[in-house]
Amino acid sequence: MDHAADTGAGRSEGADVRQIDLSNIEELARGCAVLGTGGGGETRTAAAAVRHAIREHGPVEVIGIDDLSPEDVIMPLSGVGAPTVSAEMMPGLGEAARLRDAAEEIMGRAVAAVMASEIGGGNGVMPAAWAAQLGLPLVDADGMGRAFPELPMVSMYVAGVPVRPMAMTDVYGNVSIVRATDAASSERIGRAICVAGGCHVLMSDYLMTAAEAASAVVHGTISKAVELGNLLLTSPDPIGRLAARMNGRVLMTGKIVDVERRITGGFTRGYVSVSGAGMDDGRSMRIEVQNEFLVALEQNEVRACVPDSIVLVHAETGEAVATENVRYGQRVTILAWPSVPIWRTDRGLQVAGPGAFGYEFGFVPVEQRVEGIHTPV
Amino acid sequence: MDHAADTGAGRSEGADVRQIDLSNIEELARGCAVLGTGGGGETRTAAAAVRHAIREHGPVEVIGIDDLSPEDVIMPLSGVGAPTVSAEMMPGLGEAARLRDAAEEIMGRAVAAVMASEIGGGNGVMPAAWAAQLGLPLVDADGMGRAFPELPMVSMYVAGVPVRPMAMTDVYGNVSIVRATDAASSERIGRAICVAGGCHVLMSDYLMTAAEAASAVVHGTISKAVELGNLLLTSPDPIGRLAARMNGRVLMTGKIVDVERRITGGFTRGYVSVSGAGMDDGRSMRIEVQNEFLVALEQNEVRACVPDSIVLVHAETGEAVATENVRYGQRVTILAWPSVPIWRTDRGLQVAGPGAFGYEFGFVPVEQRVEGIHTPV
Repeated sequence: MDHAADTGAGRSEGADVRQIDLSNIEELARGCAVLGTGGGGETRTAAAAVRHAIREHGPVEVIGIDDLSPEDVIMPLSGVGAPTVSAEMMPGLGEAARLRDAAEEIMGRAVAAVMASEIGGGNGVMPAAWAAQLGLPLVDADGMGRAFPELPMVSMYVAGVPVRPMAMTDVYGNVSIVRATDAASSERIGRAICVAGGCHVLMSDYLMTAAEAASAVVHGTISKAVELGNLLLTSPDPIGRLAARMNGRVLMTGKIVDVERRITGGFTRGYVSVSGAGMDDGRSMRIEVQNEFLVALEQNEVRACVPDSIVLVHAETGEAVATENVRYGQRVTILAWPSVPIWRTDRGLQVAGPGAFGYEFGFVPVEQRVEGIHTPV
Repeated sequence: MDHAADTGAGRSEGADVRQIDLSNIEELARGCAVLGTGGGGETRTAAAAVRHAIREHGPVEVIGIDDLSPEDVIMPLSGVGAPTVSAEMMPGLGEAARLRDAAEEIMGRAVAAVMASEIGGGNGVMPAAWAAQLGLPLVDADGMGRAFPELPMVSMYVAGVPVRPMAMTDVYGNVSIVRATDAASSERIGRAICVAGGCHVLMSDYLMTAAEAASAVVHGTISKAVELGNLLLTSPDPIGRLAARMNGRVLMTGKIVDVERRITGGFTRGYVSVSGAGMDDGRSMRIEVQNEFLVALEQNEVRACVPDSIVLVHAETGEAVATENVRYGQRVTILAWPSVPIWRTDRGLQVAGPGAFGYEFGFVPVEQRVEGIHTPV
């Protein structure tokens, strides 16, 4: 098999990716960084780990849910923790194998495919490494369509997939299996285990069959990430193209003038202040953070908020800036775009709308706040 | 079966208890309070729970390890958490059954008997309730011979019993199974799950066969607790008799003049200052606490320290005072006695000697510091 086979480039917009290999891992990583809305973990370390795994085990087959038999077991995987920590922890060997063993115990059947729990950030990239290590295909889907900070903030929860035990493992080799009675408990216990594991653990949550997954996941997000990455790497106007492709808008361009960031309770929290420059001279925005960018405020008025995506990119290259990498003096462009439909349902907003993060204001779609964005269908 | 059958009273010193019933539960509770050296959880709430369980399910058979077949599975049980919290949380139904199910999954065999992980405090009492609920016998043994605050501080760890997954459940019904790679990890993860469960969970650690238990547990401690409780309830000189029976000594009698107590990281920590009264007028001692009384200091000199037992009792009744109940103005007598032999081995001292609690001084047996105590055989 040609490990560098070209499947990532030269596709028409929206075409399905059938393989992750050395030719498109950089595109996947850049796309996941954008979809991460600042979180989901470091993508460069993750891309390096995937390259290493692909060199050792060969490319990863990417499949649709409907390529699986209805009873096939899908193992969603994600790293949980503070991005600030995970950026400094090289993913180890053995974690994925330990979780597969635990998953097969829980489900009583072999695992047929790996899925990213969240496509955003390193968590969208690393599943390719885990799939390569395990010799399993990677499903072209995820449970968020972006990144979110808390464990129950996945589409499978919103869609009502049966709750099965979740399995977690840390770099020390400890394995914990938690049968939680509800989502709040799973977040509380899972977060505690995460902190005890050094603020970074690998988790498999919402183990499910392909039949259960069909209507419960966000489809096509591996392909979408590769497409966005390709666009950023090849377009002469990456930021404009990105905004157009995501049906979003540039909110402002400027310089980061203040960053407050702390790790507390297993999260990276804080805010970023951006002072407008060029045609945005005199404006300023404040972006609030819990692992991801949650809310963009201008003069205390909400310009965009969760579950819609707020994305900071380098003003020249369009490369996404993660919450753990924002620094005083960076020139950034702030973009926003509408979330995938599931997060705008009543239950989706309960789980990941502004109220779920402690804000008292209600969700208003970004297209009603910012001109030129169209309501998604 | 006569639920109030008299087996607890009228025994000769050291005779084996064959049953826990309504006649001897009070003795068990008072004895466990003494053996808890201030910790192990509230005994009155626990005794009430046992009475309730015995009324519902009948008395609990108490057996020796050698009454079991070598391959029979023993399930050690204990509540983990800050005593200050557990005193306010009535033990629920269902916890023991959830852990038995988890234990049988882990061991692949039925559980044959329940054991107290620690005989001290409520943790020595509650296993009788769990045994009654489950219709299982209770082993006349425990894993400490006293109470200790941290998970690996059990004789099974010192003795090298194979480490199996530990199971924990909280009052909300969540069940976590942890396969830890070492004792430090099991403490760290277990403690985190405990805090996430509201600072109190029920745990089964060191699941083992009767063959493995034989040389790894502290034998006869249920009988010992009942004997001590009987002595406190019936003797005209309870404190003197208690000290003599445990081969210990009264360190001082006085009034509590200062208490510092806080709950942090799942532990009750702090100290108690006692000002001497009567024939101890002019003396003062400071007792340091981590769930249990750890060190007794007089003018900055160690008078007794872990793993030896330091016990505070009401100066008149001899009733043990728990660390969560010490209060300004109480008149107390401070006793100390030698630990069971396993804690004085090199490995025992590594696990639960002063160094294990962050003290820089080495262990000196209490009989070398205080006159009139004899080295235990």
